[in-house]
Amino acid sequence: MSEPVLTRYRAIVEYDGSGYCGFQRQAQGIPSVQEQLELAVGRLAKQPVTVLGSGRTDSGVHATGQVIGFDLVWKHGLDKLQLALNAHLPPDIAVRQVEVAPANFHPRFRAQWRSYQYLVQICGAEQVRRPLTRNRCWQLFQPLNVQKMNEAAAHLVGTQDFATFGLAPQGDNTVREIRQAVWTEKEDMLIFEITANAFLYHMVRNIVGTLKLVGEEKWTVNEFVMALQACQRRRCGNPAPPHGLYLTLVEY
Amino acid sequence: MSEPVLTRYRAIVEYDGSGYCGFQRQAQGIPSVQEQLELAVGRLAKQPVTVLGSGRTDSGVHATGQVIGFDLVWKHGLDKLQLALNAHLPPDIAVRQVEVAPANFHPRFRAQWRSYQYLVQICGAEQVRRPLTRNRCWQLFQPLNVQKMNEAAAHLVGTQDFATFGLAPQGDNTVREIRQAVWTEKEDMLIFEITANAFLYHMVRNIVGTLKLVGEEKWTVNEFVMALQACQRRRCGNPAPPHGLYLTLVEY
Repeated sequence: MSEPVLTRYRAIVEYDGSGYCGFQRQAQGIPSVQEQLELAVGRLAKQPVTVLGSGRTDSGVHATGQVIGFDLVWKHGLDKLQLALNAHLPPDIAVRQVEVAPANFHPRFRAQWRSYQYLVQICGAEQVRRPLTRNRCWQLFQPLNVQKMNEAAAHLVGTQDFATFGLAPQGDNTVREIRQAVWTEKEDMLIFEITANAFLYHMVRNIVGTLKLVGEEKWTVNEFVMALQACQRRRCGNPAPPHGLYLTLVEY
Repeated sequence: MSEPVLTRYRAIVEYDGSGYCGFQRQAQGIPSVQEQLELAVGRLAKQPVTVLGSGRTDSGVHATGQVIGFDLVWKHGLDKLQLALNAHLPPDIAVRQVEVAPANFHPRFRAQWRSYQYLVQICGAEQVRRPLTRNRCWQLFQPLNVQKMNEAAAHLVGTQDFATFGLAPQGDNTVREIRQAVWTEKEDMLIFEITANAFLYHMVRNIVGTLKLVGEEKWTVNEFVMALQACQRRRCGNPAPPHGLYLTLVEY
């Protein structure tokens, strides 16, 4: 039997972002999801390990489908690797799936499509905030016109300059391709699903915050389209809060 | 215009029980829902106020329909009373509705029926705990036979001695009337709804923990019925954890 060798693994991670400054490791003492994952993998490796993510998420943002990559020597099989990682992770982070990846797999650079979900709860009937869902969605007290928001969102689809909705990392260009951007309703929840090849900083929250203006009928669909086409940050609405946002899927 | 007088109010309260020792006020320094409500009403009254609840809930148990009663002199109307209370309450507690009650209204002694919901999430596909719902349901990793659990639960309905499933306050008798006890399925959630005139200590959690044995097919329906009819605490299964339980409705 051959000795186990250093292998690159790829895993899908779910987390409740409420207690973290975001995915990305920060200065000492500031809790991040990456730090917790690196501690867990490091316990198995018995040495410090770097865990790469498919992308940073903001403070308070959740994930059901964050993808990570790391190198480890492990001889007990994938199921036991997943169990061992989950045993070392805190209750608000869990590894949902682990597989062997090609040695050159990089969760960020290899990603083709990223999907986010944004949840809005309309606390309309009683006009009262709801404690049980407070860290899982944006609670609003007036109905939104979902049809108008979908009319506006349809204009986001395609390859175009999204400078209105965010800054690019390292001053890169702000052209992105959006494959899908659609609202659906489920009981008192409005669910926005958006898929793009990549996102600008705070882009989903900025889009949701601007679409809300359309849903409230403060903006017409045409005003939304003009803001998009202006490619100016100052034409953007206020960002939606982070705790309604979920990274749901990364496709390779 | 007449002076406002001391009035008894009745309110419906929702809370996330995760951060509390339960509804009932405890010793100094132990956080309870009642203490927070008394602080909020006390701020409006500018003096200490007692807030009565329809019943204690265990540490970690949630409510969407806890009913409270309190006395207050208030001259600004019900809507503003609700807003003022919610402004003084922490994010994990909210008043959903306020109304004027008869001066002799007591939320516990006047209650006719109490309803609870218990949520079980079957994390079957991936066999992994789910961080985002961890404080809202009991996460199990094997499917449960819902039909068998409903067959067993049907035997709970009616007026009978539930001594198997809990102790009575102050050594009172253990006969209660259950009006409804039924499981439904919704995606990966199993929802147990139970309504009774009153409950014994930990009764819903004890019933759910015992019905789980039937759902796992460790017990037959007949074994469940025999345990119920034995009226012996030692015939009860282990209690289900508190964080899946919700007090949903109190009827007067």
